[in-house]
Amino acid sequence: MSLADQVEYGAAPLRLGVSLEFSAFAAGLDYSDLPDEVVHACRRGVLDWLGCAIAGSRHPTIARLLAGLDVLGSLDRVPAIGQGRRLGILEGALANGQMGHVLDFDDTHMEGVVLHASSPVLAALFAAAETDVFDGRSLIVAYALAFEAGVRTGKASPAHHDGGWHLTGTLGSIAAGVACGRLLGLDAQQMVHALGMAATQAAGMQQNRGTMCKSFQAGKAASNGVLAAFLAREGFDSSEEIIEGRRGFSRIFSTVSRPEAMLAGLGTDWHVLRNGYKPYACGIVLHPMIDGVIALRDFGVKPEEVAALEVTVHPQTVRITGVTDPQTGLQSKFSVYHSAAVAYLDGNAGLPQYSDRRATASDVVTLRGKVRVATDERLRNDEAHAVVVDTSGGRHEVHVDHASGTRANPMSDAQLEAKFLLNARPVLGEARAAQLARTVWALDRLADVRQILALAAAPEDLP
Amino acid sequence: MSLADQVEYGAAPLRLGVSLEFSAFAAGLDYSDLPDEVVHACRRGVLDWLGCAIAGSRHPTIARLLAGLDVLGSLDRVPAIGQGRRLGILEGALANGQMGHVLDFDDTHMEGVVLHASSPVLAALFAAAETDVFDGRSLIVAYALAFEAGVRTGKASPAHHDGGWHLTGTLGSIAAGVACGRLLGLDAQQMVHALGMAATQAAGMQQNRGTMCKSFQAGKAASNGVLAAFLAREGFDSSEEIIEGRRGFSRIFSTVSRPEAMLAGLGTDWHVLRNGYKPYACGIVLHPMIDGVIALRDFGVKPEEVAALEVTVHPQTVRITGVTDPQTGLQSKFSVYHSAAVAYLDGNAGLPQYSDRRATASDVVTLRGKVRVATDERLRNDEAHAVVVDTSGGRHEVHVDHASGTRANPMSDAQLEAKFLLNARPVLGEARAAQLARTVWALDRLADVRQILALAAAPEDLP
Repeated sequence: MSLADQVEYGAAPLRLGVSLEFSAFAAGLDYSDLPDEVVHACRRGVLDWLGCAIAGSRHPTIARLLAGLDVLGSLDRVPAIGQGRRLGILEGALANGQMGHVLDFDDTHMEGVVLHASSPVLAALFAAAETDVFDGRSLIVAYALAFEAGVRTGKASPAHHDGGWHLTGTLGSIAAGVACGRLLGLDAQQMVHALGMAATQAAGMQQNRGTMCKSFQAGKAASNGVLAAFLAREGFDSSEEIIEGRRGFSRIFSTVSRPEAMLAGLGTDWHVLRNGYKPYACGIVLHPMIDGVIALRDFGVKPEEVAALEVTVHPQTVRITGVTDPQTGLQSKFSVYHSAAVAYLDGNAGLPQYSDRRATASDVVTLRGKVRVATDERLRNDEAHAVVVDTSGGRHEVHVDHASGTRANPMSDAQLEAKFLLNARPVLGEARAAQLARTVWALDRLADVRQILALAAAPEDLP
Repeated sequence: MSLADQVEYGAAPLRLGVSLEFSAFAAGLDYSDLPDEVVHACRRGVLDWLGCAIAGSRHPTIARLLAGLDVLGSLDRVPAIGQGRRLGILEGALANGQMGHVLDFDDTHMEGVVLHASSPVLAALFAAAETDVFDGRSLIVAYALAFEAGVRTGKASPAHHDGGWHLTGTLGSIAAGVACGRLLGLDAQQMVHALGMAATQAAGMQQNRGTMCKSFQAGKAASNGVLAAFLAREGFDSSEEIIEGRRGFSRIFSTVSRPEAMLAGLGTDWHVLRNGYKPYACGIVLHPMIDGVIALRDFGVKPEEVAALEVTVHPQTVRITGVTDPQTGLQSKFSVYHSAAVAYLDGNAGLPQYSDRRATASDVVTLRGKVRVATDERLRNDEAHAVVVDTSGGRHEVHVDHASGTRANPMSDAQLEAKFLLNARPVLGEARAAQLARTVWALDRLADVRQILALAAAPEDLP
């Protein structure tokens, strides 16, 4: 009798560890168990991620990744987004995952666990889905579960982020492994092994912020997750206490361990519902400040009349984005100074505002020298205060209670689709981008999810 | 002017971080800088690793790995050891790396950093070497450097092992990345990026001891290292302070950080010289005890007359190998009780003593119930004391000062070759095994190292 059978039929009361109990839940969940709002959150997540990856496909970092993969060689199985070509299963997961995160424009989970789940998870799922026929509902169940696996592991390891790890790499690997395991239909025993194998590959260092490695870590997490699931299906094993064990993930990746967080509210409290989408192409911690600075423009103080831009943010914002004088587009995403300056100058903080050119533009450099940053621990991390001081000493203030894109102030479906189309059109063209959006909004009725990457892969000028 | 030029010509005094300074050394080292004893240590390391991987190629874990890789698909570029087939570059590194470690029979670095360097490093180097023509001396320089990278990172992070990581996964990834970077001829700037990319992929949890993941982690480290080096060559970047940075490896993977260990004695103190080879197919911490128990047999107490086997070991031995009642061959490698019992019964602790069959054999189970383990912190970790107590109360004692296979009591070249032939013959046959040994002893005169995997890949019954 398999473990799944024992759990399902409960012949005797079992005392399972949290890794096993979580895995039994993941293996047993049915599409019909998902509330409608969870299904819809999954549609939104897929659409937003695709847009980010399509826009990201043109980033120079991706060209270098593909050049390296070409020397190593790979099969032609997974459509590489925006490239009009295919890669092997593991390489496709890697490349598409890095594309999704390379612009720092992809989704961010809120409320304590700063995880960009979709880049590792969806890159992994769409790569795994090239091995067989999987319908949209299978993908939705797997995707929803990924948030449970990734965020709950983060909550089980509450000091994980402060420890210096890049959660999109570490938790992303675990989320991708569980998601792929679910897509492949693993039983509970196989699932706990996929979880264990994904965790044992979990990696990614915050030290690499502002380098090509940050988004690479998202791609690598996708590839790790795929490998974990396919090996688990072949009977590859791992520890069955990978989260809670004496040297389990929650013990060694965090100085505080709360493995019970794997199970609390499981099946009723759905973490995909707290997934945030970014109106701005930078770290989510900057968004409330950017909302505030953009709003300051309404006071009509011209940039040359600005004596100071004073912004007050949660201390975490400065810890993560304290770069004072960025020299590249990548670095500028980690600069609260740059972000305030471009928000004031351009009234936006989209992809053009984080280009290499804009990072060193003279108007930006001048204004960011006038940005003063204060921190206040009483602020929530989606809250900020912004003041523009004009050269005659006048002060104009804005307070942002909840950043746009957060759960309390979410992007509407129409705003999300508009963001998607802005991201996708330059690569796919108008018609294909629109067709892709329609396909994703109807994801739960899609018979074969391979249609999605097929649409996302081909640039406009290819057949 | 490249960084390497600046370092080489020293136009102005440079203040480099340890990651950069180490990378400049790694990029600039010449074969002629290596003492003869270092070159010979490399020959020994390659020979021993090949034997372990060839024997490991028949392990059922490897069949599962290959089954999973077959579903995912891969190119035919790297000879898979003992399989008569090829895999892609990354998959070949993974599979050959896992084969090297799956029997826990491969080399172990001594003196503080418990790293099995050769499985990740040589699997990576031989895989990378399939992309071009590389001679034996290039491989030797890269291999020697791998020990410097891996062990020094370990010394820079002295609490790393106690933190719960599997060093062959974590440090192995770094060692493999630097080694492959060197093989590819990266300059100092590219090398520090390879180092950074290898570190950011570093993973592997001790929680997975006794499962298929332990050796998987060695293979994954190999694959990580290959990927890091090839991407660095394409201009992929990373933090240039990956070891010493505020959230660098030595800070987040260890509660104690000593980044200066990356440089102390660099170029004069060669860590490959402290590489230990295993006469026994289990963790090195068990070896002094096994030496002692085998020596106890000379007192002639028959197994049925044994009242107790009392062994005294360093406390680390029990922390790592405290399994009391192993049910599988893999588990039995982590049992001081099992190891003492088979050493006494069989007078050896080779591959047959750690089989699934032997793990549950009745004579072994009976005798391991009579094993009493004491710990003594005053013992070195290559020292042990063993006592056999007979049923009439007689006590017979042996003290082992230095385990066989350690630097103070090393295996001779002849013993190493005998171990190699025992490992390789059943898979390659007599003639091919002997030819491979001759090729490795002449590694420094080999024009194209691809000859080695070509010999190691084909089983006897294939052309």
